[in-house]
Amino acid sequence: MKFMKHCKKCPDYITDRSSVQTFDETRRLAVRQAMSHKDIEILSLSSIIQNLKRPAAATRIMMQFSPASTIKYSVVFRLFTAAITNMGTERHYHYLDDIEDGKGTKNFILNSSDFEAAKCWAGGLGQSATHAIVYAQLILKGISYGLHAFVVPIRDPKNLLPYTGLIVGDMGEKIGLNGIDNGFVVFNKYPIPRENLLNKFGEVTEDGEYVSPIKDPNKRHGAALGSLSAGRVNITCICEAMGIKALTIAIRYAAQHRLLPYLAAAYVLREFNTYFIEVFYQFSIDTNIGSKKDVLPDLGMEIHAISSACKSVAGWIMKDAIQECREASSGIGDVRNDHDANLTYEGENHVLIQQTSNWLLKMWPLILNEEKISTPLKSADFLSDGLEILRKGKFTAFTFEEICAPENIISIYQWLTCYLLKRSYYKVETELKSGKSNFWAKNNSHVYHCKNLSIVFIQHFFLQRMLSKISEAEDPAIKNVLTNLFVLYGLWSLEKHIPTLYHGEFAQGPTLPNLLQHSILKLCADLKNDAVSLIDAVAPPDFILNSILGASDGMVYKHLESAIYSSPYAMERPKWWKEIINWKDNKSKL
Amino acid sequence: MKFMKHCKKCPDYITDRSSVQTFDETRRLAVRQAMSHKDIEILSLSSIIQNLKRPAAATRIMMQFSPASTIKYSVVFRLFTAAITNMGTERHYHYLDDIEDGKGTKNFILNSSDFEAAKCWAGGLGQSATHAIVYAQLILKGISYGLHAFVVPIRDPKNLLPYTGLIVGDMGEKIGLNGIDNGFVVFNKYPIPRENLLNKFGEVTEDGEYVSPIKDPNKRHGAALGSLSAGRVNITCICEAMGIKALTIAIRYAAQHRLLPYLAAAYVLREFNTYFIEVFYQFSIDTNIGSKKDVLPDLGMEIHAISSACKSVAGWIMKDAIQECREASSGIGDVRNDHDANLTYEGENHVLIQQTSNWLLKMWPLILNEEKISTPLKSADFLSDGLEILRKGKFTAFTFEEICAPENIISIYQWLTCYLLKRSYYKVETELKSGKSNFWAKNNSHVYHCKNLSIVFIQHFFLQRMLSKISEAEDPAIKNVLTNLFVLYGLWSLEKHIPTLYHGEFAQGPTLPNLLQHSILKLCADLKNDAVSLIDAVAPPDFILNSILGASDGMVYKHLESAIYSSPYAMERPKWWKEIINWKDNKSKL
Repeated sequence: MKFMKHCKKCPDYITDRSSVQTFDETRRLAVRQAMSHKDIEILSLSSIIQNLKRPAAATRIMMQFSPASTIKYSVVFRLFTAAITNMGTERHYHYLDDIEDGKGTKNFILNSSDFEAAKCWAGGLGQSATHAIVYAQLILKGISYGLHAFVVPIRDPKNLLPYTGLIVGDMGEKIGLNGIDNGFVVFNKYPIPRENLLNKFGEVTEDGEYVSPIKDPNKRHGAALGSLSAGRVNITCICEAMGIKALTIAIRYAAQHRLLPYLAAAYVLREFNTYFIEVFYQFSIDTNIGSKKDVLPDLGMEIHAISSACKSVAGWIMKDAIQECREASSGIGDVRNDHDANLTYEGENHVLIQQTSNWLLKMWPLILNEEKISTPLKSADFLSDGLEILRKGKFTAFTFEEICAPENIISIYQWLTCYLLKRSYYKVETELKSGKSNFWAKNNSHVYHCKNLSIVFIQHFFLQRMLSKISEAEDPAIKNVLTNLFVLYGLWSLEKHIPTLYHGEFAQGPTLPNLLQHSILKLCADLKNDAVSLIDAVAPPDFILNSILGASDGMVYKHLESAIYSSPYAMERPKWWKEIINWKDNKSKL
Repeated sequence: MKFMKHCKKCPDYITDRSSVQTFDETRRLAVRQAMSHKDIEILSLSSIIQNLKRPAAATRIMMQFSPASTIKYSVVFRLFTAAITNMGTERHYHYLDDIEDGKGTKNFILNSSDFEAAKCWAGGLGQSATHAIVYAQLILKGISYGLHAFVVPIRDPKNLLPYTGLIVGDMGEKIGLNGIDNGFVVFNKYPIPRENLLNKFGEVTEDGEYVSPIKDPNKRHGAALGSLSAGRVNITCICEAMGIKALTIAIRYAAQHRLLPYLAAAYVLREFNTYFIEVFYQFSIDTNIGSKKDVLPDLGMEIHAISSACKSVAGWIMKDAIQECREASSGIGDVRNDHDANLTYEGENHVLIQQTSNWLLKMWPLILNEEKISTPLKSADFLSDGLEILRKGKFTAFTFEEICAPENIISIYQWLTCYLLKRSYYKVETELKSGKSNFWAKNNSHVYHCKNLSIVFIQHFFLQRMLSKISEAEDPAIKNVLTNLFVLYGLWSLEKHIPTLYHGEFAQGPTLPNLLQHSILKLCADLKNDAVSLIDAVAPPDFILNSILGASDGMVYKHLESAIYSSPYAMERPKWWKEIINWKDNKSKL
């Protein structure tokens, strides 16, 4: 694998942590590594276009190897360039090669009203960025046209000094990903050329008029939202990668019962990511070359809705997985700290997941009218039968075999989605009727309603994608093990929805919780012997994993012994040992 | 407050993190701070004996201020000395003053069979300990008498060099608490004097015979287990302190709905800790002065059972609280990393909590015989009515007022404890009858059974203690707010037990989940305006909190602006800025 060869050879990918002790050294290393990523052939745009399965594979291995530098690289060479290619036009392409400081005669003026309006951003603004993509309200002759994206020169590329008219700086130490220089910027009536508006979806003419090539503002919105999903689509894959890294260490060390549902979740998520990243890259290419223009707005909306839920739910599942791994083994601290930002960047999860329920809420009136619901990725097509699903919904399983039937599990999630959609819709309506604003109506309907709706919706879609993968498997042994993982993930996730199943009278009597618990225990017991092989099949190589407890040969104590004896601190007195024994004397000197 | 004065004045309590960048500097600072704790009058043993409420107060503020050094201090000057005073006799008291290297003619031989038998320990073994309390199997003439505690000289106090016959070293970097030098030790037929056995509960005579002053081995066990609870009792208070530190920051920044149940949990836990730490210190004093000998074994057992559950449950609640705070605000990373060890040291939570269910399981046969159950702290007395509780158990609330009635909430938890006790008992029996060993029978009955049993038992005891506090409050306004916190914690914790309530047919029909959700939302909405005052009442002072977002004056953006502009990295180019702009040239030189 060319990638591994490059990493093992390149001096910037040192893995000896003891030589990188300070904050500044961490930063410097991340910059050098991010630059070095550019030389990896398989990560190049041309390589990706040849095979749209490559981005998922690359994200996985790079995030498991070197998360801070990979995100730094992705923001500069992927998000920045994607913003230019997706939302800009030919006049911006020079930014993709060598970024120059263009000055035009017609300017936009960027202004931050006060410090509370400061922009804070990951990815390089703190110390190293020369340009930023800035989302700002476009105001022309006193009329606001909403958020638009601009390319904004921040620092002089020749000397990295900030331009006058703005204050830019670093945000300091974080929980994790400290190689990335998060920064803030405050604009003080800072002029940028008119041409720096990324103008694919909306343009301002020389005489200050607003024009857009997409006439329907909803469609304009849909296409733009799709493009904005890039970060979230990738983060969903990052969550999977980080979760699998932690699970590799913990499961190889001790395949405990409570880790196994997370193993199942990782497999389900992996199939989903492989599918969804390919869908997203195809969408980006179509957007760029201008094909499939009729379907793109709806597809953009659906990608936005799905990515808002899958990023949140993948983040939460893997947060729990990593924490369980940490409690069951050791050496997981960095993974946990680096994973944490996934929960809050590119949309804080609790806020973000409202985007999904907003999209779904619009469908309830269609369900009531028994209209056909059909979306490009078919994630919500089953809602066409919403009334029927609600009418017939009833828990009917009595045996392990019955509750484990995949079509049964799918139908429970379909009922949950329909029921929570109905419940959320009427909750929002009630809030609106009581005089609440749209913002507060949604906000008051979040807990127990809209949030749960988005969660069951995406869990159903994860399961649906997994089922489609299972149906493609030819080897019956593989089909069988994938089905077991599907069932375990499906039933285990269902536990949290027991209150809804009773509340909506889908379940009655004492059977459901007992059967669910019994089945999950049995599935975990059955899976236990295969757990190490299953994690081995998706684990990163030892060089990337870099773990004492989780090495692929399983020789935990051998590695532990050698690591302990070879640690630079292990067998030495601290240099300041006399301070310890002379404490009383020292103190009197102070 | 003398403590604050000392901390603000003492040069070892510097708070400028930028001067402590490396691992070694972190270690050195923690040692100096831990030594410095010795000079704080209020932390001294004599001060504690005067007022048994002081240890809880001291643990709270010190853990919020400087966790690594506080734990280091506690292990050396509390756990070590407690082990000597609780389990040793007069012949060991010289260790409490100046520790000398005594050699006797009759020796015990300590031996680690291989590296897997290495002892790993927090608290100073890595770099600085001169003596350790080592638990080892006592084997006399080929017969094992079980675990006993020994004082073992590890390093020469004059030069901190390890003695021959053992290998001792440091375990390196951890997730948090890096000031503490966790270490490992391997003994190679290492001799220690016979007198180094801590012999209060069991002694070996000069001619190698085993004698014990406590004739009943169960009672010996009970008294010893009580003493061993010291760490867990303190950790429960540490969990509360760390949770409150995080909640102070997050609630002052944004009193979001999802933080409020944790605020309620923190209050409930706080009342419990204030009570339980006093109980524990009284128990320790009684053990040391040899009073109340008839009740101490039973009390020791009960303290062991309670501390095994409260440490685990407090650890888990506050883990979630801290994580929610981190997602809702900023600057919580260190609290989270330092809290993590609470989940795994002094008994890994999942293993530890079995101790509680083991104690409870013994009571089911008594319940069946309708015997009176009476324990010194009355935590399980309600089990005397176990059969009646199970017979009458039924969810009867239909309104907010009904479900919020404290006696109603208490009775639900009593039913849950009885039901899960019965269920766990028969599950273990079934496993045993199918030929499983005791270990595997318990292990296979952990998930959904014994673990949940221990959790509802301790939640009931938390609530019972809170109710007792409420009944003592004279001011009706305070009574009211404490009751609301009691109810919110009680109902919110109940959500996770909904499956059990349906499975045991305590609940039927759709009412329970809906009423519970509605009530929790209403309680949170009612609490929202008081949330900041409530956290202010238990928050550490700004000097200890040391947070930008959480300062007591609420001026978030003012502090944020000044912190950002004054950070050493904020406005400077990195020293290696030329590497960024000259990347291509640099690379060609490599």
